[in-house]
Amino acid sequence: MAKEITGRSEDYSQWYIDIVKKAELADNSAVRGCMVIKPYGFAIWENMRDQLDRMFKETGHVNAYFPLFIPKSFLSREAEHVEGFAKECAVVTHHRLMNAPDGSGVVVDPDSKLEEELIVRPTSETIIWNTYRDWISSYRDLPLLINQWANVVRWEMRTRLFLRTAEFLWQEGHTAHATAEEAVEETRRMLDVYAEFAEQWMAVPVIKGVKTPNERFAGAVDTYCIEALMQDGKALQAGTSHFLGQNFAKAFDVKFLSENNVEDYVWATSWGVSTRLLGGLIMTHSDDDGLVLPPKLAPIQVVIVPIPKPNDEIGQAADKIMRELRAKGITVKYDTDMKKRPGFKFAEYEMRGIPVRLAIGERDLANNQVEVARRDTKEKTSQPLDGIADYVARLLDDIQRNLYQRAYDYRAEHITKVDNFDDFQSVLDEKGGFVSAHWDGTTETELKIKELTKATIRCIPLDNPQEDGKCVLTGKPSTQRVLFARAY
Amino acid sequence: MAKEITGRSEDYSQWYIDIVKKAELADNSAVRGCMVIKPYGFAIWENMRDQLDRMFKETGHVNAYFPLFIPKSFLSREAEHVEGFAKECAVVTHHRLMNAPDGSGVVVDPDSKLEEELIVRPTSETIIWNTYRDWISSYRDLPLLINQWANVVRWEMRTRLFLRTAEFLWQEGHTAHATAEEAVEETRRMLDVYAEFAEQWMAVPVIKGVKTPNERFAGAVDTYCIEALMQDGKALQAGTSHFLGQNFAKAFDVKFLSENNVEDYVWATSWGVSTRLLGGLIMTHSDDDGLVLPPKLAPIQVVIVPIPKPNDEIGQAADKIMRELRAKGITVKYDTDMKKRPGFKFAEYEMRGIPVRLAIGERDLANNQVEVARRDTKEKTSQPLDGIADYVARLLDDIQRNLYQRAYDYRAEHITKVDNFDDFQSVLDEKGGFVSAHWDGTTETELKIKELTKATIRCIPLDNPQEDGKCVLTGKPSTQRVLFARAY
Repeated sequence: MAKEITGRSEDYSQWYIDIVKKAELADNSAVRGCMVIKPYGFAIWENMRDQLDRMFKETGHVNAYFPLFIPKSFLSREAEHVEGFAKECAVVTHHRLMNAPDGSGVVVDPDSKLEEELIVRPTSETIIWNTYRDWISSYRDLPLLINQWANVVRWEMRTRLFLRTAEFLWQEGHTAHATAEEAVEETRRMLDVYAEFAEQWMAVPVIKGVKTPNERFAGAVDTYCIEALMQDGKALQAGTSHFLGQNFAKAFDVKFLSENNVEDYVWATSWGVSTRLLGGLIMTHSDDDGLVLPPKLAPIQVVIVPIPKPNDEIGQAADKIMRELRAKGITVKYDTDMKKRPGFKFAEYEMRGIPVRLAIGERDLANNQVEVARRDTKEKTSQPLDGIADYVARLLDDIQRNLYQRAYDYRAEHITKVDNFDDFQSVLDEKGGFVSAHWDGTTETELKIKELTKATIRCIPLDNPQEDGKCVLTGKPSTQRVLFARAY
Repeated sequence: MAKEITGRSEDYSQWYIDIVKKAELADNSAVRGCMVIKPYGFAIWENMRDQLDRMFKETGHVNAYFPLFIPKSFLSREAEHVEGFAKECAVVTHHRLMNAPDGSGVVVDPDSKLEEELIVRPTSETIIWNTYRDWISSYRDLPLLINQWANVVRWEMRTRLFLRTAEFLWQEGHTAHATAEEAVEETRRMLDVYAEFAEQWMAVPVIKGVKTPNERFAGAVDTYCIEALMQDGKALQAGTSHFLGQNFAKAFDVKFLSENNVEDYVWATSWGVSTRLLGGLIMTHSDDDGLVLPPKLAPIQVVIVPIPKPNDEIGQAADKIMRELRAKGITVKYDTDMKKRPGFKFAEYEMRGIPVRLAIGERDLANNQVEVARRDTKEKTSQPLDGIADYVARLLDDIQRNLYQRAYDYRAEHITKVDNFDDFQSVLDEKGGFVSAHWDGTTETELKIKELTKATIRCIPLDNPQEDGKCVLTGKPSTQRVLFARAY
C-alpha cells in the first residue's frame, strides 16, 4: 500500500529502496552485493533491452557471446586498464570441491588450483580484443560491429539495488575500425543511440558530453557519456561510449592490412549501458505513491478495475475494451480478483506505476462511460465508452510526453551558472543539480573541488559554448564552463 | 569453400568441428573449455531463444534473474545435489588483485580472501530456493512460474563446441506448486513444450521419456527428457524437465499455508535447455557441403545471387522479390559483392545453410524466370518470376517439413529391437542408433552394460508398451523395453 512508502522529502534513499522493494522490482540476495531481479523489474528490463537491441541492429551491429572468464594476465596487458579495473573483482582460483574429511559438507579441493587465476569479467575489452586478433587481418574484415548482452562483476564495497551492484546485467559493444575517424564516428553514433533511447523511451532527458581525463574509462582515449539528473539533485551517469584509439589493438597485437597494403593497428570503440538504467528510470519519474513508468517501457500499460467487483456485464465491457486496445498494440490487464477491494487495487497499481487505470462500475456502464485515471498526474476523468481505445492511446502518448517534459523542466531549473566558489558550494548544498562553472582544466583542481564539495565534473557538454572566464576554484583562465554535480 | 570440410564418413567428429568453424558458428577461446559464440551462431541461438521464450510466456511463465554466485554451503544443503553437481565447478576465493611487488603484473591480494567461497552457478536450484523462502508463505503465492536465461559453468574435462563446454548459455525454469500433482503436471507440460520446439522449430524428432534412477538429475524425484538421434547413430539428450518433489523445499525450508490452513513444504520442478541444442541442430541436418538449417530458425532464409554480378536490371528485380518476401515475414539478403564469383558465393551460402538461394542472370530476366536452389536436397529448378514469393514461401515450408521427415525416417530406421546381448553389441557397433531391449530394472545391470558397451539407457519412453521379456544382459524377467544408445 502506498502509505508504506517513505516520503522523498523525508528520506530520499529510503524512498528509493521502498519503491524497488514494494513495486517488486528487485531484492538483495544471499550473496553480498548481488541482486535478484524480480519478474516485474525484469519485465521492464526486457522492454529496455529489446528496444536497445533493435536500435543496435538498425545501426548495423550483430550480437555475439564471449567467455565469462578472463585470464588474469590479460588484464595487465593494457596498463591503464588494469589500474582502473582489475582491482576489485571476483577471482576464480580452483575448479573442484570435495567432501570435507570430517563430513561437515564440501571444501575446496586444494589439488584443483588453477595454473593461472581467472577473473570474472568486469568488462570484456581484453578477452574480446584477444579474440579479434584471430578475426581481423584485412581492411575487408572491418568494421567489425559486435555487441554482447552479458552479466559482469565488479566487487563494489557499497552497493545499492540497480545503481551499484557487484553483479549486473548490461550490454557492451566492441567495434573495430580501419581509421580513427570511423571509430570516433561510431563512438558518437552510439552516444546518440543512448541519448535517443533515454529521451524517447525512458522519458529521461540527458546531457551528452565528454569526460575529463580523470573520469575517463581505463584504457580509453576519450569517454563520452550521457548524464541524467535525479529528483534529489544528484547526477547519474546513464551510459558511456569510449573511443579506445589503438590501445587495445596494441595490447593484443591486432593489426590489419589496409587497402593500400599498409599494416596498421586497428582502431576501437566500446560502449555500454546496464541495469543501472532501471535505477535512473525509477528515480526520475516516481513519486511518494510509488513507481511511475513511461508508457513505452511499462510491461502493463493499462489496467481495468471492476467496481466494486467483477460481474458479467462489466466483464463484457472490459473484453471489448481489451480487444480494441490490443489491436493497437497496447498491453492491458483486467483485474478479476474477487478478494481485494477497489481501493486496495488502486493503491497497488499506483505502486507498480501502471500508466493508465480504467475503473468500470455498473453506473458507469449505464451512463456509457468509464473512469480514467492517469498515473503521472493522478488526474481522474470520466470518458465515454465509445472511442475509449483511441482516447487511451492518445493519453499514453501524452503521459510519455509529459513525463519527459516534467523531467526536462526540473533539469532546466537545476542547471545553475556560478562564478565563485561560495556560490558553488551553496548551490550544491541548498539547490543541488548541475553547477555550470569555469574550470582551469587541471586534474589537480578537479580533485581538489571533489575533496571540498564531493562534486565531480560530470561532463563537458558536446554543444558547449566557448567563453572566457576564470576557474571557480583557482581563478586561473578558462575557455568554457563544465558541469559539476554530486553523483550516484 | 565446401571442399574444405571433412566428409562425415571419413571423420564424423572432424566434420562437426569443420562445420562449426567454417560456417562461423563458434570458436574456442583463450579460456579452457569456454567458447566464443560468433555472430552467425548467436543469431541462430537468438531465434531459438526468442521462440522458446514465447512458448514459456504462453504457458504462464515470467522471467527473472538470480545471482551468478552460490555460497558454497548452499550446495551441501540438498545431499544428492552436492554429489551430482558441486564437484567440478569454478570456485571464487578472492575479491581483489594487486600489483605484483616485483612489477611483473597483477597478483591475487591474499588479504582479499572470502570468508566463504562462492561457486559460479552450475545450475540455480539452491540460490533460487533460498530466495523462494522469502517469496512464498501462502497457497496464494503459488504456483510460482519463473524462468531465467543465464550462463552457467561446469568444469568439464573434455569439451566440444556447443555440445559440452565449461560455460554455456541456457534457460532454467524453476517452479513452485501447492501439490505434487500440479508439479508433475508442470514437469510434463514443459517436456511437451521442449518436444514441440524440437520437432516444429528445429525439425528434430525427439523421444519423450523418463530417465532411470541412475541417470536422474541430482536432487530430482523424476527426470523427464527428450532424446534425439544424430547422424552418426549417437543419441543426444536435448532437454530435461525434473520433478523435484519437496527435496529443495525441505533443504531450504520453503513452506506454505494451504487453503485449509495446513502447513506443508512446497513442490518443485526445474527444466532446462541450452546452447547444446545448437550442436544437435547442426548434427541432425547438415551434410558434407556444410550447415543445413530449418527455415524457421535460419537467420537468413533466402539469398539472391546476381549472375555473374550485380547490375541495375538484376537489382530492380531483386528489390521487387525482396519486398514481396519481406511482406510475408521472410528474411532475405541480396548479395551485391562485386569481387566474388557466383560459384564461390554458392559454396559459401551452402556452407552457411541458407535454405533457399535464388540466382538471377540477364537471360533469366529475359525469360521472366529465376533459378531456385533448395539447400536440403540441393535440387535446382527454374521458376517464373511471376508469383516467385508465393513459390518461395511454400518451398520454405516444404524444406522445414522435409528436414523433419528425413530425420524422422533416419531415426525410425535406427531403433532396433534386440533380444540377446550379442545382437545388442553388434547393432551398437555396426548400425548404431537406439537399441530397444529388455532390462531387469537394476542400476547394477545398467552400469554393467555401460561398462561393456559404452551404451546408456537414454530413457524409458513415455508411451512405452508393456510386454513380458527377459533382460538382455541378465535374462531376468522384465516388463518393458527401454532405449539404449551411445550418447553425446
